[in-house]
Amino acid sequence: MLEHLSNNITIVLVNPSHPGNIGSTARAMKTMGLHKLALVNPDDFPNSHANALACGADDLLDNARVCSTLEEALADCQFVVGTSARVRGVSLPLVDPRSCAHSILKEVNQGLQVALIFGREDKGLTNEQLQRCHLQVHIPTNEEFSSLNLAAAVQVLCYELRMCGLLDADKLEMPKPRSHELASVEDMERYYEHLHEVLVEIGFLDHSSHEKIMAKLRRMYGRIRPDRVELSILRGTLSETQRTISDAKK
Amino acid sequence: MLEHLSNNITIVLVNPSHPGNIGSTARAMKTMGLHKLALVNPDDFPNSHANALACGADDLLDNARVCSTLEEALADCQFVVGTSARVRGVSLPLVDPRSCAHSILKEVNQGLQVALIFGREDKGLTNEQLQRCHLQVHIPTNEEFSSLNLAAAVQVLCYELRMCGLLDADKLEMPKPRSHELASVEDMERYYEHLHEVLVEIGFLDHSSHEKIMAKLRRMYGRIRPDRVELSILRGTLSETQRTISDAKK
Repeated sequence: MLEHLSNNITIVLVNPSHPGNIGSTARAMKTMGLHKLALVNPDDFPNSHANALACGADDLLDNARVCSTLEEALADCQFVVGTSARVRGVSLPLVDPRSCAHSILKEVNQGLQVALIFGREDKGLTNEQLQRCHLQVHIPTNEEFSSLNLAAAVQVLCYELRMCGLLDADKLEMPKPRSHELASVEDMERYYEHLHEVLVEIGFLDHSSHEKIMAKLRRMYGRIRPDRVELSILRGTLSETQRTISDAKK
Repeated sequence: MLEHLSNNITIVLVNPSHPGNIGSTARAMKTMGLHKLALVNPDDFPNSHANALACGADDLLDNARVCSTLEEALADCQFVVGTSARVRGVSLPLVDPRSCAHSILKEVNQGLQVALIFGREDKGLTNEQLQRCHLQVHIPTNEEFSSLNLAAAVQVLCYELRMCGLLDADKLEMPKPRSHELASVEDMERYYEHLHEVLVEIGFLDHSSHEKIMAKLRRMYGRIRPDRVELSILRGTLSETQRTISDAKK
């Protein structure tokens, strides 16, 4: 599944004006496991500033296909998605990045080649360019400030593609932080008994407030949901308190 | 809901080294409707390069809180999330950006103040800094190239927060592209009759292949799912074909 992201999706930048954006795009793609980049009539490429911003994704720049027309860039693709900053009244299905990623994954899982095309920084895609697309995707930006950087838009869409691929392959598992078994109810009860014993010993609990305070402490410690190692640390503080008091009395 | 994103979430950059990243962070935040930025000991700020890359999000830079310690930046926050490039063996709950956004939204919807903290570009957050967090978020990057730019990481997390806020408020609706009613089955049947008539007239259909070809054409036109205006265009091409033939015969 994730190989499809790498092998079957081409990011196409149409007429990008800033070489830095080309480099940042390569970096954004590679962090998300995408590798195929096509550039239609870039103003300035290759360019050392692009390499500087690629920050280790230079291989994508080296292998980028430079085309003189959009048709050339799309020639071997079977599904084309256009990105649009503005929500225009075109007659193309318009989707958010998450739905877009699902649609693209469906295509690539069938072995099809997909292009995701981005327009020039200042203008976006023209209506004529959008007419070559099967689907239009819009990143739902702040209505009052929708000026998303080109590479940032690439980052968001490639991120959604990767999330979609990981979820589809059931591989989005974050390592579990706990390495120890959680304390059982019985462990906790023994802790509360010990705690009660110490609180009486230090004179913190008197008969009137007794139950109320223990209930509050139970609620607090319950929220910790300690594992067995953590609970033994808590128990240790109680034992040491008792030992210190007993030593002092000698 | 979306006001909470703006009013209750602070993006904290700890000791950022490049002023350009501070500017790009401000831009990334503002495109997603976030406004509160705090900087802990930035190497170089204010700086004109930051303003250049903020690209219209200068107000976030002007209002950024510059703090000398992380504690100062977090002072009024009730929930703290740390970002981590590496999946380290710390004993903090570790989540992906989507789960993270859900957790944060739950907090801000209760009116709580949340901080999302990002470490220095080259090192990320230290273990000591992560210990101040309730939750740790990891963007699931390509294992072989996980070098996400600081502002790109901010962009992805702010995007997830906005998506989560929009979905929660039931506001992630993309405008429908079709303005006309879809053609009914009856409309389509009349179209197929007309098409059949013309195909016979131009000698495209003979008796042997007749049904097979009509079935294929039905399947193709069925996939278009035309609206009424589109169907009248298709009908128009048929009528014009018939008119041209009839004129030619005169």
